[in-house]
Amino acid sequence: MREGGMLTEKISRRGLFRNAGKLAVGAAAMAAMTSGGLAFLSKAEAKGGPTEKWPWPYEKLDPGKTAEIAYNEWYRVFCGAAVISSVFGQLREKIGAPYTSFPIDAFVFLEGGISGWGTVCGSNAGANIISNIIIGPRIAESADGMLMGSEIMQWYSETAMPVFTPSEPKIKAAIPKTISNSPLCHISVGRWMKAANKDLMSPERKDRCARVTASVAYHLTELLNQWKDNTYATKGTIPSKSCGITGQHNCTDCHGSNVPAPPLPKSL
Amino acid sequence: MREGGMLTEKISRRGLFRNAGKLAVGAAAMAAMTSGGLAFLSKAEAKGGPTEKWPWPYEKLDPGKTAEIAYNEWYRVFCGAAVISSVFGQLREKIGAPYTSFPIDAFVFLEGGISGWGTVCGSNAGANIISNIIIGPRIAESADGMLMGSEIMQWYSETAMPVFTPSEPKIKAAIPKTISNSPLCHISVGRWMKAANKDLMSPERKDRCARVTASVAYHLTELLNQWKDNTYATKGTIPSKSCGITGQHNCTDCHGSNVPAPPLPKSL
Repeated sequence: MREGGMLTEKISRRGLFRNAGKLAVGAAAMAAMTSGGLAFLSKAEAKGGPTEKWPWPYEKLDPGKTAEIAYNEWYRVFCGAAVISSVFGQLREKIGAPYTSFPIDAFVFLEGGISGWGTVCGSNAGANIISNIIIGPRIAESADGMLMGSEIMQWYSETAMPVFTPSEPKIKAAIPKTISNSPLCHISVGRWMKAANKDLMSPERKDRCARVTASVAYHLTELLNQWKDNTYATKGTIPSKSCGITGQHNCTDCHGSNVPAPPLPKSL
Repeated sequence: MREGGMLTEKISRRGLFRNAGKLAVGAAAMAAMTSGGLAFLSKAEAKGGPTEKWPWPYEKLDPGKTAEIAYNEWYRVFCGAAVISSVFGQLREKIGAPYTSFPIDAFVFLEGGISGWGTVCGSNAGANIISNIIIGPRIAESADGMLMGSEIMQWYSETAMPVFTPSEPKIKAAIPKTISNSPLCHISVGRWMKAANKDLMSPERKDRCARVTASVAYHLTELLNQWKDNTYATKGTIPSKSCGITGQHNCTDCHGSNVPAPPLPKSL
């Protein structure tokens, strides 16, 4: 990577991201023509234990109820585990096994972008875990689990968040909404903190993250219900397909106007 | 966040990261004096299903054998699921339940930094999943699972990778080693691609990632064995503790010399 990029493309950033999204749809169509998945990785075969038969049984859930559970669970197990708990907790009651054997609470570590490192927002990680466990990995029957997780991250990045307001919020004042343009915790939380002028330990920041968690749980449940009804048509994409490197499409957000070009294969 | 940072701090980057590491050790000592975990989040209580009793049974594994398994599993399920498979696959045979009920292959989606988005490297995510499932979440008996996962990410970021060479490598030529200064796939893979001048779809890039996966599995097994022997003294830290925002300490890597200051609480 060349050095020297600048974080100065403030105005064009959104536009680039949105245009890149359109490109990515084309890339997804290309991907659908291949063996279903990341074309830079070879097709793999499944083996596995008794819970590695997909899809896992699923019954439609109420998105609003799921979001309320996720909101409240945030205050117990934080973003990633709260999303998992909101869906798998209900499925434990409705269906039982195999959901009863999944260690939901172990995923508390997704908080703060994995142990406070600010990488992927835990609510995105939790949503991907759910969609890929229920629908299965792309090496099994369908790539829809991966594509649904990717769709959640795209939606998360483009949406003024949080979109969900709980029925009994712990913070009564309005919570500002911000667009992260990123699935990463550091950028999502940082942009909100700047807009709200609230610190990381503030009750408002915590409630914002609880509401983002609930928002993701709500939308994920909508998509899972569509999938259950056989009406799910994924908007998910594999960004690296059209980039030549794993990443998002809003390159200038970190690189500025001097976006480095990765080594490309002769066929591109 | 202010705009206008530049990616020009090439020389000082490593030094800052290392110095920040020292600061982080101090932060960890501070954290140990609190209720054990991310101080910006409140202490939570556990509830859960039958597999949510910690620690899970563990028997010491051979790091070299585990790394060989991870290397070969990369070519079946890729980085994140390969790390999980290398440890949990052996524990399924040695111990059985609860490892038999964990859907290892569902975690294929961790490839490419989660579905090709370039966020956290799947091998780091897989290592965190393992340490937090075996030792348990910080809301249970110990924060060591989270801290071990964090330690793996710090080691991954600072180490010339890959460190492990498989006994029967698929690529016979030497694979360049690079320091990522980041737990993120995009940065780790991108820096290696630049140094090696190899594209994302090249056999060399794939084998590099398989070896990184094996390297993480090797070191994780070393740490888990120490933990089993009651000799594990974590070097893991919670970076956000001393920053006021979730993230790493090498701020200039993306922000350049103009690092924005997050809103801070009055007590800091």
